[in-house]
Amino acid sequence: MRLEHIGIAVSNLEESEALLEKLLGRGSYKRETVAEQSVTTSFYRGGAGEAKLELVAPEGATGPIQKYLDKRGPGIHHLAFEVDDIHAEMRRLRRDGFELLQEVPTPGADNKLVCFLHPKSTNGVLVEICQSRRE
Amino acid sequence: MRLEHIGIAVSNLEESEALLEKLLGRGSYKRETVAEQSVTTSFYRGGAGEAKLELVAPEGATGPIQKYLDKRGPGIHHLAFEVDDIHAEMRRLRRDGFELLQEVPTPGADNKLVCFLHPKSTNGVLVEICQSRRE
Repeated sequence: MRLEHIGIAVSNLEESEALLEKLLGRGSYKRETVAEQSVTTSFYRGGAGEAKLELVAPEGATGPIQKYLDKRGPGIHHLAFEVDDIHAEMRRLRRDGFELLQEVPTPGADNKLVCFLHPKSTNGVLVEICQSRRE
Repeated sequence: MRLEHIGIAVSNLEESEALLEKLLGRGSYKRETVAEQSVTTSFYRGGAGEAKLELVAPEGATGPIQKYLDKRGPGIHHLAFEVDDIHAEMRRLRRDGFELLQEVPTPGADNKLVCFLHPKSTNGVLVEICQSRRE
């Protein structure tokens, strides 16, 4: 599996976009709302060929990102790794003792299927595995 | 600036190395103790051409990583971006209103000079900028 992106939880997407653009010297190349996750995302290139950065802001007051912000405040939220076959990888991870947060993959941003692993089985790191959806 | 690595704070380096190897399907390619930061680090390739993952475990009871673990527990600790000229970039960041945690760069792992930015000026994300040291 290959590092695909790093998710950063933010409260105010506009302010955080301006800040990250100032830091990196380049702007967001895509914004996308993912209704299934109650978030709006905004993507930045990490560099030539590098993993992306994804700002993740809550939509509504009850989604998982809003809960995360309420508990921990803004900051790095998850690491996402791309895999070729998410179903096979989920079986492999279960077999290897990782705790998955979902039974089946769900739609994520950037035309992907995603599955999250419980941080307690991954050293406190919320890990997402993702697979590009075939058209 | 280009995403160079992601630092993950861990308490027990051996256990975390075994876990990350199981998750990624590949092992650490380098371990290095950095006395200046009171840490031992262990590096993993993020994928072909991708940013690295760096496990960071405390050495001794008083360093910044031990303090972080005491306060927040294990998890993603920082994002590091490589720059060509760390002194010029530090001046640029100061001018743009970012708060630097140090006046001058310090030696980091992997033969680099590093400087950290205060998370309060970067949306809760501890950002490191780093420059490869010339021999």
